[in-house]
Amino acid sequence: MTNKLWGGRFKKKIDPQFFQFQKSIDYDYLLAEYDIYHSLIHVIALNKSEILTDSECDRLLKALCEILKEVQTGGFKPNNSAEDIHSDIQQRVDKKIGKLSDKLHTLRSRNDQIAFDVKWFCFSSAVMVLEGLSSLIESFSVLSDKYPKSFMVGYTHLQRAQVVTFSNYLCAYSEMFKRDCLRLDNYVKSLTASIGSGALAGSAIDKKCYAQALKELLGKFSKDSLNVGPVLNSMDNVASRDFVVQFLSYLAIIQMNISRFSEDAILYSSKEFNFFDLPEEFCTGSSLMPHKKNPDFFELARGYSGPVYGNLVSILTTMKALPLTYNRDMQLDKQPLFSSFEIVRDEIAILSRLVPGITLKEDNINRALLDEMLYATELAEYLVSCGVAFKDAHEAIGKLIRYSQDKKIQIKDLSDEVLTKFHNKLVKKEIIKIFSPEWAVRSKKSLP
Amino acid sequence: MTNKLWGGRFKKKIDPQFFQFQKSIDYDYLLAEYDIYHSLIHVIALNKSEILTDSECDRLLKALCEILKEVQTGGFKPNNSAEDIHSDIQQRVDKKIGKLSDKLHTLRSRNDQIAFDVKWFCFSSAVMVLEGLSSLIESFSVLSDKYPKSFMVGYTHLQRAQVVTFSNYLCAYSEMFKRDCLRLDNYVKSLTASIGSGALAGSAIDKKCYAQALKELLGKFSKDSLNVGPVLNSMDNVASRDFVVQFLSYLAIIQMNISRFSEDAILYSSKEFNFFDLPEEFCTGSSLMPHKKNPDFFELARGYSGPVYGNLVSILTTMKALPLTYNRDMQLDKQPLFSSFEIVRDEIAILSRLVPGITLKEDNINRALLDEMLYATELAEYLVSCGVAFKDAHEAIGKLIRYSQDKKIQIKDLSDEVLTKFHNKLVKKEIIKIFSPEWAVRSKKSLP
Amino acid sequence: MTNKLWGGRFKKKIDPQFFQFQKSIDYDYLLAEYDIYHSLIHVIALNKSEILTDSECDRLLKALCEILKEVQTGGFKPNNSAEDIHSDIQQRVDKKIGKLSDKLHTLRSRNDQIAFDVKWFCFSSAVMVLEGLSSLIESFSVLSDKYPKSFMVGYTHLQRAQVVTFSNYLCAYSEMFKRDCLRLDNYVKSLTASIGSGALAGSAIDKKCYAQALKELLGKFSKDSLNVGPVLNSMDNVASRDFVVQFLSYLAIIQMNISRFSEDAILYSSKEFNFFDLPEEFCTGSSLMPHKKNPDFFELARGYSGPVYGNLVSILTTMKALPLTYNRDMQLDKQPLFSSFEIVRDEIAILSRLVPGITLKEDNINRALLDEMLYATELAEYLVSCGVAFKDAHEAIGKLIRYSQDKKIQIKDLSDEVLTKFHNKLVKKEIIKIFSPEWAVRSKKSLP
Amino acid sequence: MTNKLWGGRFKKKIDPQFFQFQKSIDYDYLLAEYDIYHSLIHVIALNKSEILTDSECDRLLKALCEILKEVQTGGFKPNNSAEDIHSDIQQRVDKKIGKLSDKLHTLRSRNDQIAFDVKWFCFSSAVMVLEGLSSLIESFSVLSDKYPKSFMVGYTHLQRAQVVTFSNYLCAYSEMFKRDCLRLDNYVKSLTASIGSGALAGSAIDKKCYAQALKELLGKFSKDSLNVGPVLNSMDNVASRDFVVQFLSYLAIIQMNISRFSEDAILYSSKEFNFFDLPEEFCTGSSLMPHKKNPDFFELARGYSGPVYGNLVSILTTMKALPLTYNRDMQLDKQPLFSSFEIVRDEIAILSRLVPGITLKEDNINRALLDEMLYATELAEYLVSCGVAFKDAHEAIGKLIRYSQDKKIQIKDLSDEVLTKFHNKLVKKEIIKIFSPEWAVRSKKSLP
Repeated sequence: MTNKLWGGRFKKKIDPQFFQFQKSIDYDYLLAEYDIYHSLIHVIALNKSEILTDSECDRLLKALCEILKEVQTGGFKPNNSAEDIHSDIQQRVDKKIGKLSDKLHTLRSRNDQIAFDVKWFCFSSAVMVLEGLSSLIESFSVLSDKYPKSFMVGYTHLQRAQVVTFSNYLCAYSEMFKRDCLRLDNYVKSLTASIGSGALAGSAIDKKCYAQALKELLGKFSKDSLNVGPVLNSMDNVASRDFVVQFLSYLAIIQMNISRFSEDAILYSSKEFNFFDLPEEFCTGSSLMPHKKNPDFFELARGYSGPVYGNLVSILTTMKALPLTYNRDMQLDKQPLFSSFEIVRDEIAILSRLVPGITLKEDNINRALLDEMLYATELAEYLVSCGVAFKDAHEAIGKLIRYSQDKKIQIKDLSDEVLTKFHNKLVKKEIIKIFSPEWAVRSKKSLP
Repeated sequence: MTNKLWGGRFKKKIDPQFFQFQKSIDYDYLLAEYDIYHSLIHVIALNKSEILTDSECDRLLKALCEILKEVQTGGFKPNNSAEDIHSDIQQRVDKKIGKLSDKLHTLRSRNDQIAFDVKWFCFSSAVMVLEGLSSLIESFSVLSDKYPKSFMVGYTHLQRAQVVTFSNYLCAYSEMFKRDCLRLDNYVKSLTASIGSGALAGSAIDKKCYAQALKELLGKFSKDSLNVGPVLNSMDNVASRDFVVQFLSYLAIIQMNISRFSEDAILYSSKEFNFFDLPEEFCTGSSLMPHKKNPDFFELARGYSGPVYGNLVSILTTMKALPLTYNRDMQLDKQPLFSSFEIVRDEIAILSRLVPGITLKEDNINRALLDEMLYATELAEYLVSCGVAFKDAHEAIGKLIRYSQDKKIQIKDLSDEVLTKFHNKLVKKEIIKIFSPEWAVRSKKSLP
Repeated sequence: MTNKLWGGRFKKKIDPQFFQFQKSIDYDYLLAEYDIYHSLIHVIALNKSEILTDSECDRLLKALCEILKEVQTGGFKPNNSAEDIHSDIQQRVDKKIGKLSDKLHTLRSRNDQIAFDVKWFCFSSAVMVLEGLSSLIESFSVLSDKYPKSFMVGYTHLQRAQVVTFSNYLCAYSEMFKRDCLRLDNYVKSLTASIGSGALAGSAIDKKCYAQALKELLGKFSKDSLNVGPVLNSMDNVASRDFVVQFLSYLAIIQMNISRFSEDAILYSSKEFNFFDLPEEFCTGSSLMPHKKNPDFFELARGYSGPVYGNLVSILTTMKALPLTYNRDMQLDKQPLFSSFEIVRDEIAILSRLVPGITLKEDNINRALLDEMLYATELAEYLVSCGVAFKDAHEAIGKLIRYSQDKKIQIKDLSDEVLTKFHNKLVKKEIIKIFSPEWAVRSKKSLP
Repeated sequence: MTNKLWGGRFKKKIDPQFFQFQKSIDYDYLLAEYDIYHSLIHVIALNKSEILTDSECDRLLKALCEILKEVQTGGFKPNNSAEDIHSDIQQRVDKKIGKLSDKLHTLRSRNDQIAFDVKWFCFSSAVMVLEGLSSLIESFSVLSDKYPKSFMVGYTHLQRAQVVTFSNYLCAYSEMFKRDCLRLDNYVKSLTASIGSGALAGSAIDKKCYAQALKELLGKFSKDSLNVGPVLNSMDNVASRDFVVQFLSYLAIIQMNISRFSEDAILYSSKEFNFFDLPEEFCTGSSLMPHKKNPDFFELARGYSGPVYGNLVSILTTMKALPLTYNRDMQLDKQPLFSSFEIVRDEIAILSRLVPGITLKEDNINRALLDEMLYATELAEYLVSCGVAFKDAHEAIGKLIRYSQDKKIQIKDLSDEVLTKFHNKLVKKEIIKIFSPEWAVRSKKSLP
C-alpha cells in the first residue's frame, strides 16, 4: 500500500478494508504480459519525445524485458500487497533500477493501459479458442471416420423422427463450431488497440513518437500480434468495453453449442438410449452407489452454461448507463472475461480428447432403426411420388400408423388388402423396400 | 383450429386452452413476407421436380404473390384462429384456389420454413438497424457542426477530469456506433439461409431443383436480398439459432451504447450540470408538479437496457442444452428477437431526430471550464517538460491542490513565492497560460 | 394526445413518434381495476379534507364505480390514443361528468398511483398463482392415487440409480411446489401498499383523511384485499420496485421447477424411456412426419424458462443504479411482470389438467426394474449389515459389477463359488431376495 | 487422486486434465464446517444403529472435532489434491485414526451431504447479511442525527422536484434495507435442512437414530443453529436448490438498493451537485491527474450489480430443465453463491463505516433550495386550498413558470399585477411565505 501511483492530494491513508475491496491484483495479474507491452511502447515513445534519455530508456527497457521473460516462462507470481498489475510491475522495475522507475508512468494513465491490456487479452484468448475449436472439429471428424457406414436415429422433440447417417449427425456440430470460428476470426481481424489516450483527453506525447515505437516493437511481442493503431478518439478508447461484451457473447454461443452436444451425449449414454459408451477416464462414480458411471464431464459442460451466460449478463449490467468516460465500475470487466474464457477453453480442450474415445453401440442403434415410425415420412413421400397430394398422403399414413399401433401389428406385416384400405397405392412390396435406413438416407436428394 | 397441417394419427382434438398456449400466430405473422418467399421457392422447385404441373405451379404462385403483395403493402391482417403463420398462409391459398393448396406443403417441413423465415427476418432487421445507425452518426455530426468551437468538461468517475472539445466528446459516441455498424455489416454479409432441410433429414426434392428455383427468384424479393445457399447440413439447419443470439447480442451492445449517451444526456440536462437544453417535444411533464420538464426519452432509452438484455438471456436460456434437432422450445426465439429489434430501431429513429435539436448551454460550460482542477494534469505535464520526473510532478501538484483547497485560494492567485514552495519550476506566468481550454486541448499531441 | 395530465409549461406539442414510444396504455390498462381503487380512496379523502363537496364526491364515485364495473365484467377496452391508464380513466370520467373530472387528480401524482397499482397487481397475481399451485399439487396427488403401488426408476446423472416408489417420485415435485406456495404466502402477507406519497414528498391531504377513506372502502374491493397502510416514507414508496423483483424471482423459481418436471416428462415420453403416455389433446403432430406425437406442452413449458428468467434480468437491469426517486425507466417494470405472471399462470393451469391424464406404462417400468444395477447399493448395504466396512463393501460390489458386465452374466446367475471371490458374505440366496423393488424400497428406514 | 470415494467398478484412472476440471476443493472448502456437522450427526446415528461401536464412534467424533476446531479457528487449509471437501475431510480423518475412517461414509451419499452443507452455508450467510444490514441501517441513522434540521433537494427524473428533509431522504434507504431484512428473516426462519436422503432414495439408517443424534448435537454447533428436520422427500432433497436461488435473488435486491444509493452518492459528490463530501479514506486518486478524488467505493458498489445479477442468472440457468434427481451440473451452485455473498457482505460492511463519515455540504444545498421551481407544487396546492380545481391550478402555475423563465425574472419578484394575470388568487405575500423549505415540508400532512 505504500507505493500507490497516486496520492499527493490525499491527507488520509486509504482504509485497509476498502483497500482490499478495491484492489485488483488478485485477478488482473493475468494481464502482466500485455501491460509490459504497453510499457515497452510507452518508454520508447518517451525516448523519441526526448523525455527519457537513451540511457534511461535502455535501463527501463532492460528491466521490463526481464519481467516480461519471467511472465512468459511462467515464473511471475503477483505481489498480493500491490493495488493492481500496473503498480506491481512499477514496483518490480523500482526494485531493479531504483528511482528511475518513477518515470515509467510519465504522461500515462492507467485508463489507457488497461484498455490496451484487456483488448490484447481478448485478442490472445480468441486466438486460443480458435485453435481449440479447430482441434475439436478435427476430433469430430476422427469419430466420424471410426464409423463411416453407421446410421443414427434422428430426433425432433426428442421423439424418433427419421434416420440419418452418423456422420451427418456429427457434422451438424462441426458446422456449428465452424460458424463459431468464423465469428472469432472476424473478431480478431477487426480488433484494434491504440496507445496515447491519456486519462481521457489524449497526451502530450506526439503520435509520431508512438508510431515510431510501434514500428520498432510490433511483431516482436508474440506469435500472433494484435493490430495496434493510432488513437481515433481518446474518450471512446478509455470508456468502451464493447469488445469484451462481443467476445463474451461469442463464448456464450460456443457454450450453448457445447451444452447441446453435452445433452445429446448424456442422453445417448443413458441406459435407455444406450447409443454411446463414454471413455471411462472422463467419467466418475458414486460414493454410495457402487455401480455408477456418470457422464460428469458432459454434465459440467452443460451446467457451465450458467456461469458463461451469467458472465455476459455481468459485463452488460456493469456497463449499463455508465457516463463517459472511465468509471471504476469498469474494473469489473475482468473477472467475467477471465472466467468465461477459461471455462470454454478447458471444455474445448477436454472435449477434443474425449470425443474420439466415444464408442458407438451400433447394435443398439440398429435395433432402434427397426422402429417403423422412422420411415413414416418416406412412406408419405413414396405416395407423393405416385402423384398423391401431400396432405392426403400425410393423413393416410397417419391413420395407418394409428391402426398399426391400436392393433399392435407392424405395418410391414399388414396384408395388401388391409394396406389399400388406407390408400390404394400402398403395397407391401414397396413398404419393405422403403423401411430401411439405406433407402431412407439415399432418398434425401436435397443434401450435398 | 380445423385446418391444422398435421393430425392424421390423432384421435382426440387438441385441448382449446393448450391450443391458445402453443399457437404463435399472434407474433409470427411478422414473418409472413419471408414465409411466402420460402413457399415461392418451394413451389417452383416442386415444379422442376415434376411434382407440380406447370399449371398447378402457376396457380399456386399467383395466389402466393397476391398474398405477398398484401403483406408488402401493409394490408395483411393475421387470422388469429390459425395456429401459425404457415397455416394462416396455407388457408389463404386454400381460399383462393381450393384443394390445390393441399400441395403447398408437399415434402416440406415447418422446421425448414421457420429457420428460413427467422434468418431472413434477422437479415432485414439488421439492414434496417444499419441504416438507422448511419442516420444517427450523421445526426451527431450535425450537432457537432452547430458548435464547432465549443469545449466540454471531460469526466472520469463523474469527477471533472480534463477539458475536451465538444466535437471530440460527440465523436466518442460516433466511434461506438461505427463499430456497431461494422459488427452488423459483417453479420449481414456472413448470413446464409438454405432451403431443403425437410424436418431434419433433408428432402426428396433434388438440390438442383432448388438451385434452379433460387436462380429464377432471388433478387426479385426485396431491395436487399439475403444470400440463400445449398443446405450444408440439414440437422444443423433446423436445430440452430446461433444467428438469433448473435443478432440479439449486437443489439444489446447498441443498447448499452445508447444507455450511456442517455445517462450523459440526463446528467447534462439536470439543473446541476445544466449543459444541455433538450428539445421540448421529446420531454414530458408531471401531473402534480407544474414546473417539470423531464428527459423521458433518455430515461426510457436507458431503462430499455432491461428488456434488451433480458431478451438476450431469454434466447440463450431457451436454447441451453436442447438436444438435436428441432424442439418446440425454439418457437420462443421470436418474441425476444422482435422485441429487441423494435426497441432498438425506435430508439435510434427518435434519437436521430432528437440529437440535432439539443442546445448546448455554452455559458454554463464556460463557467465550469474556469475550474482550475481541470488543468492540474496539464500543469504536471508542464513540469515534466521542464525535466521533472512525472511521479514528482504528480505529487507536487497534488500538494499544491490540497493547499489551494484548504486555503480556498485559486492557484493562479498564488504568488510565485508560494508556488515555488511546491516546486521551483512553478511560476505564475506559466500557470495562467496553461489554465485555459485552448492550451489544454492544443497540448494533446497524441490525437489525430 | 389532447388530454394530457400535464403541459402548462410546454410551448411545443409532443413529437408524435416519441408519444408512441413513451405511452404505456397498450399494457398498463391491465392495472385499470387497481387504478380505480386508488381514485376511489383518493376522492373520499379529498372529501374528508373538504376539498371536494359531498355532491362532487358522490358524482366522482358514481362515475368511477361505473367504470370499475366495466373492468370487472370484462367490458373495458383501453383507449389506445390515451397516454396511460390514469389518463384513460380520467377521460372516461370526463365523458361521464364533464369538468368535475378535472378535480380527480387534485393533489395527487401518478408516481403514487402507479406504485399502488403495481403493488396491487402483484398481490392479486400472487394470490392467483397460489391458487393455481394448490390445484397443481392436488393434480399430482390424483396421478399418484392412480398408481398407488407402482415403482419408478430413480435417476442421478440421468443414470439408473435406485428404485423408488412412483408416489415418492411425484411427491418430490409436490414438495417443491409447496415451498413455492410458502414463499408466495409470505409474500402476500408482508406486502403493504400505501397512498399519499404525492410525487415524492407527500401531499397536503391529512393522513387521517386517508385513514378514514380506507376504513370505509377496504374489504369492498375484491375477495382478497391487499393490506393498505399509512405512508412510511414517501420517497421510498414512489422509488422502489423491490416487490416486483421479489415476485419475478419467485415466478422464476416456479418456472425452474416446472422446467424440471417438463424435462422428466419429455424424457419419460420418449420411445427410449417409454414410461409415460401423454394425453393426446396436449400434444401436436408434424406437418411432414405423419407418425409424430410430440410433447409440445412440456417443450414450451421448458422453453419458457427463457422469457421468465429474462424478465427477471429485465427488471433488475432497469432498476440498477437509478437515483432517487421516480425515474421514467420504471415504467418498464410492467411488461416483464405481466409476461412472467401470464406464462406461469397458464403453465400451471394446463399442467393441472394434463398431469392426471398421464398414463404410466407400468410394463416398461417393470422391465427396467429388472436391471440389477438398481440394487447395487442395497447389496452394499447388506454387506454393511454383516459388519463390513462400507468402503470395502463399495469396492467389492464395484468389482462384482465389473465382472458381471465383462462376462455378460447377471449377478443373480452367478454361483456362490464365484460370488464369494468378491466377498465371503455374498450368497446367491440373499442376492435374490435383495434384488427386488419391494425389498429395496422397504429397506429405506430413514424416510417418513 | 488416490483416495477417491468411488472407483471399484472403474478400470482406468481418471484423466488428469478432467480431474482438474471437475474437482471442487478450490471453492467448496468453504463448506468444511457444515460438512463436519453432517459427519458428526451421521457418526452418532451409525452408532445408534449399531453399525459403529461406541469406541469407533468416539474415535471418529474426536478426529472430526479436532478438524472442526481447526476450521473454526481459521487454521484449516484445503488440500488442493483432494477432489472435494468430503474427500479432503475423510483423508484428514484417515491420517488421524487410520482405516476406521473407511467407515465414515457408511450408508451415506455426497448428494445428501452437499445439500445439507450448502443449506447451512446459506443459513449462516443470511444471518451474517442480516447483522450487516442492521449496522447499515444504524449508520444511516447516525448520519441523519448529524444533520437533524437539514433539508435536501428531492429529485424525480433527476430533475429538481420538491424539497424534503435530509432525514426523510436517508430514511428512504433505511426502509429499503428494512424490507431486505424482513425477507432474509423469513428466509432463515423457513429454511430446514435434513439428513438421511442417501443418494436419492433414502438410507437404511432408521430415522429415529438420526433424530437421537440431532437431539444430542444441535445447539452445540454454532451460535445460530439452522433447523434440521426429518427428510420429507429424499429425491426432492438431493435435487433441489431453490433455496440458493432464493438467497441469490434477495442478495440481488440488496445489491440493487446499494447500487441506487451509490448512484446518488456519486452524483452528490460530483462538483456539479456538490452536496456530499466523501471521507477521503474511501476514495482513490488518479495516476495521471493529480487533482482527482474519485468515489471509487460507490462506483465499485454500483458496478458489482453486474456479478451479483450475473450470479443469479448463473444458478437459474444451471438448474434449468435438470431431470431428477442430482446431476453433476449442480456442483456449479457454489461459486455464484459464494461470490454474491462475499460481494454484498463486504459492501455492507464498508458502507456501514463510510456512511457516518459523509459530510453534508449544507451551504450548497441551501443555495439549491433557493430554486423557485422546487415550490411550484406547493404553489398549486395553495391555489387548490383557495378552491381552484387542481387541473386549472396546475396549468396556471405552468404558464407562470414559463413566463418567469422567458423573462428571466424570479416569481417572487413579480408584482401582484402580473401575478393575477395567471390567477387572481396569486399574491406576492403568499408566494414569499410558500417559497421556503420549512413551509414546503410542513405542508405534507400525509406523512407520519
